[in-house]
Amino acid sequence: MGQKTSDRPRLTPKGARTRARIVEEAATLIHERGVAGATLEDVKVAAEVSGSQMYHYFPDKNELVQAVIDYQADNIVTRNTHALAGANGIEAWREMVITAARRTQARGGCQLGSLGGQLAESDPEARALIATGFDQWASAISDGLRPLHAEGKLPADIHPDDLATTLLATLQGGLLLAQVQRDIRPFETAVNTLLALALGR
Amino acid sequence: MGQKTSDRPRLTPKGARTRARIVEEAATLIHERGVAGATLEDVKVAAEVSGSQMYHYFPDKNELVQAVIDYQADNIVTRNTHALAGANGIEAWREMVITAARRTQARGGCQLGSLGGQLAESDPEARALIATGFDQWASAISDGLRPLHAEGKLPADIHPDDLATTLLATLQGGLLLAQVQRDIRPFETAVNTLLALALGR
Repeated sequence: MGQKTSDRPRLTPKGARTRARIVEEAATLIHERGVAGATLEDVKVAAEVSGSQMYHYFPDKNELVQAVIDYQADNIVTRNTHALAGANGIEAWREMVITAARRTQARGGCQLGSLGGQLAESDPEARALIATGFDQWASAISDGLRPLHAEGKLPADIHPDDLATTLLATLQGGLLLAQVQRDIRPFETAVNTLLALALGR
Repeated sequence: MGQKTSDRPRLTPKGARTRARIVEEAATLIHERGVAGATLEDVKVAAEVSGSQMYHYFPDKNELVQAVIDYQADNIVTRNTHALAGANGIEAWREMVITAARRTQARGGCQLGSLGGQLAESDPEARALIATGFDQWASAISDGLRPLHAEGKLPADIHPDDLATTLLATLQGGLLLAQVQRDIRPFETAVNTLLALALGR
């Protein structure tokens, strides 16, 4: 989302690549181990950078966590927008979210939502960034639903924004159930049942 | 749920009350501060017990966290079963969950689900207990939906177990959105939209 880009000195192309590599490795480690379980030292080793490079780009862990939130939210919004843009957008979206859950068996939960569960009560800045990410995600889903609503393929009396919020909530909760139960069936059931109800199948 | 009761020496009535007080205070502190943010010392002070009493009932924090999971799951299953048992069970359930979310403004998220988000990847025993709690919760909802399904008030082609899983997922994800956004509207929207779709209103 890059809200903070303007606050930062411009990076050289090489600097931008190094920073991006740190953020990507941090995102992977944090998703696997949780925020508390991924240390700056772990990230430094995974990204193959020196301590002074780490410190140059991320003077403290909070800044790195915030960059990871932006990174995850950007990725998710891009993927959702892309999936929903096609002719059979809802079906492509369903395929995308179920394939992603199957690939990881929902370990670590949602890349963005799991950060919310860990940080909401302890880190107000992170919480606000995750909230922005959820807003953008819901908007991306709603943008994909609006044409279907206009074509009469969704219930006329339910606003696409409300259905988008419901889809996002069901996806988040379904991933949490799947993560805790080590079984993605509750996730598939929840997404498929909601879509069946919304599409009248 | 008390799976471990049989492993434990029987408590005197006074001992049982002391233990219960420790678990209740721990549940409150853990919900407010997260598992990592609530120390045994905090719980000891809140429950007004001595260090040796704490150690007697809970030799380590993991055991206390497990007792808190059982306590929260028991409470939730009891409340859900009670709400759904009446003539207008779904409406009573909706009222219950929305009133509870309004009271806390979703701070701390769901009493059980927020523990899942914190512990699923780091504490396999806790994860398994939370999974059992979710199973019992979904069963309680399904028990409440089955008569409505038999009376034709729910879509015939959707199994009450699947609708119960979907309701639980939507509730969990809706609470996460509300917790992160510091606004319970996404939670209300998600629950109300799903119920409108399921009840055909």
